[in-house]
Amino acid sequence: MVSSIVVYGGSGALGRAIVSTFIKKQWNVISIDFNANQEATTNILLEKGDSLEEQAKRVIGAISGQVDAIVCVAGGWAGGNAASNDLFANSELMWKQSVHSSLVAAHLASKTLKAGGLLTLTGAFPAQKGTPFMIGYGMAKAAVHQLVASLAGPDSGIPADAKVNAILPVTLDTPMNRSGMPNADFSSWTSCFEVAERLYGWATGEIPMTSGKLVEIMTKDNKTTYVEK
Amino acid sequence: MVSSIVVYGGSGALGRAIVSTFIKKQWNVISIDFNANQEATTNILLEKGDSLEEQAKRVIGAISGQVDAIVCVAGGWAGGNAASNDLFANSELMWKQSVHSSLVAAHLASKTLKAGGLLTLTGAFPAQKGTPFMIGYGMAKAAVHQLVASLAGPDSGIPADAKVNAILPVTLDTPMNRSGMPNADFSSWTSCFEVAERLYGWATGEIPMTSGKLVEIMTKDNKTTYVEK
Repeated sequence: MVSSIVVYGGSGALGRAIVSTFIKKQWNVISIDFNANQEATTNILLEKGDSLEEQAKRVIGAISGQVDAIVCVAGGWAGGNAASNDLFANSELMWKQSVHSSLVAAHLASKTLKAGGLLTLTGAFPAQKGTPFMIGYGMAKAAVHQLVASLAGPDSGIPADAKVNAILPVTLDTPMNRSGMPNADFSSWTSCFEVAERLYGWATGEIPMTSGKLVEIMTKDNKTTYVEK
Repeated sequence: MVSSIVVYGGSGALGRAIVSTFIKKQWNVISIDFNANQEATTNILLEKGDSLEEQAKRVIGAISGQVDAIVCVAGGWAGGNAASNDLFANSELMWKQSVHSSLVAAHLASKTLKAGGLLTLTGAFPAQKGTPFMIGYGMAKAAVHQLVASLAGPDSGIPADAKVNAILPVTLDTPMNRSGMPNADFSSWTSCFEVAERLYGWATGEIPMTSGKLVEIMTKDNKTTYVEK
């Protein structure tokens, strides 16, 4: 029987690598994003103006049957400290981009994730501490970190033996990061395909993982390590 | 010169105790809430339908001059796990009640808090770990905890020598809690006036505190202890 994965944010840089990797492994891949990913088996398209409830209805109404894995790599970034004129707009945007998607993924897991299935969300390395220059971003990611701990707890509403974690990459090697930081040391950036292979290992059980953990992803001299926190 | 405090949530059970305590100490007390607190020196009234931006405009537009302390004890509670039909509505509500108020308090601090002033927000003891039965509440409070760490960091936008923390009471002795849990052991609940006196000590500097900390407030046999985490 063909295995299935839902990739929330399947048209972003990391999402595309995940879709591509799982398609090559002959999985059925459902991409959720504002734009279609032509490589995916199925696309669920979101609308920018959607409220959380509307987004949830759109996603959950479109998926029937059970899936083996749900990965949420939707998100965004915005800076600004407490004095910033953008504090409120950016905090709301970060909440929408990181938390709305993670919450819909969690609820979807309660309805469609198979016993023993994988739910991976996306946190942020710096949000494990204070982030004075990016207040809204840090709060939203801290909320996602706490959500992972909640979902891994007893009677959280997702299958009891599901595996839940969050990836915390430091810097992903994406076209946007390359154009934003053209003189950086790329050997310390993490390849999106490297992360996609790790997710495949977790999804199939070939790579062991501990439910409820935040997984710091660090790359040095093109070698990537994964540390569960 | 008269000292001033802003009490966000000044008409709730804890807020009323704080307003009353600081009024008795002859402070100028500005209460912010949906309903006026007649004991306060000044009231700023919020509207239920306010967006974050609207709430901020209402609050910040009404306060001129500098204040010695800003305390945010606004908030609420809602339960539900990831499978709950109320997951989305409750998560949005918790974000509004706990995070909107804390963000406006933080921005207000960047504009009006005196050097060395106090900014205290309200966290939640259980949100330091996973909260499977109250997903939205846990996420919002985890966001507030991370906000405290951000605000205490360098160049966070509030005065560099301001003191920032969050109170994490276990159970406050309020009329609502008494009616909800009539058979509980009240000697393990924390008096709102006890917390108000502690805030007064922090605001005046009579009681030392470490900026950036979460302060667990636990009561046993009517004796309350404060532990900085």
